[in-house]
Amino acid sequence: MSEAKKVPVGVSARHVHLTQEHIEILFGPGAKLTEFKPLSQPGQFAANETVAVHGPKGSFAKVRILGPARRATQVEVSRTDAFALGLNPPVRESGNIEGTPGVRIVGPAGEVTIEKGVIVAARHIHFHTSDAAKFGIADKQLLKVRVGGERGVVFENVIARVSDQFALDMHIDTDEGNAAGASTGDEGEIIG
Amino acid sequence: MSEAKKVPVGVSARHVHLTQEHIEILFGPGAKLTEFKPLSQPGQFAANETVAVHGPKGSFAKVRILGPARRATQVEVSRTDAFALGLNPPVRESGNIEGTPGVRIVGPAGEVTIEKGVIVAARHIHFHTSDAAKFGIADKQLLKVRVGGERGVVFENVIARVSDQFALDMHIDTDEGNAAGASTGDEGEIIG
Repeated sequence: MSEAKKVPVGVSARHVHLTQEHIEILFGPGAKLTEFKPLSQPGQFAANETVAVHGPKGSFAKVRILGPARRATQVEVSRTDAFALGLNPPVRESGNIEGTPGVRIVGPAGEVTIEKGVIVAARHIHFHTSDAAKFGIADKQLLKVRVGGERGVVFENVIARVSDQFALDMHIDTDEGNAAGASTGDEGEIIG
Repeated sequence: MSEAKKVPVGVSARHVHLTQEHIEILFGPGAKLTEFKPLSQPGQFAANETVAVHGPKGSFAKVRILGPARRATQVEVSRTDAFALGLNPPVRESGNIEGTPGVRIVGPAGEVTIEKGVIVAARHIHFHTSDAAKFGIADKQLLKVRVGGERGVVFENVIARVSDQFALDMHIDTDEGNAAGASTGDEGEIIG
């Protein structure tokens, strides 16, 4: 019998990644994101700063920004959030924003309307190269992961992302976490 | 090879069931629910009437009432909805409301604060007795159901409910539907 392939689960709430240009429009010239708390991936952090996100149908106040600044602004929402905003974003890997809807982002010093960048994040697992080797998993591989319990679910098409910059962590959104009755800190098992 | 056990999927948005007493408090003496559209289960309907539901943290306007009137008032929300309301209801079968949180319900003619009745509905499949016989499934059996696609998911612990008053339909909530990228009219397959 092979060893169980256990991974910690992180449930991501809606959040925003911003370019430095947009940070300065939203928070003022020279503004920088400040760290509220570190995330599971090395160098990534939840910022103290938040913005409002306004869609054609609804809006969310105080959406957390994740740092550091990125090359493209991106808004990650659950499908539940997307309906509330009045948007129909596709399920995408982070960074793959061609053809996705835009949205209006409002900060204390200004606002930005992006033409694209709203996605429902595709569920994925970050593997450090050494974890991937141990588990026998390749970058981009699609996995099945069971998250057990009263609302036990097997998630299919979980994308493996392998890098020596990553720490082992499975990322699902709030719809997925809630459908599985799972919270950050729970455990998943790769079953296929 | 046995025949595939396919079931239609219905995604239930947040909704309310009311007693006749509460209908009259909320909508006025002698008020009755009026049918907006029939549901999949014989005799059940979405009403034209809606109410507001107010929790300690947030509220929802225009929550659909499902008829006919019931023996106990019950509010069914997704876990996402529950967080927005500021409640922590358990996952329960419909009708099993002992020990669940209450909530304030507001209609055009009055309001009611229920002491219990807020649940996250446990996913389930209604089987007509003849479907259950054909599929070899017993009442209360816990099933595994795969809902495929880009966000394919296997739901475990899906409760079988068998009656000659039921029509074949799987009921999941919006978190579950969104986690699976599924909408009403999609198909699930019982795989275990």
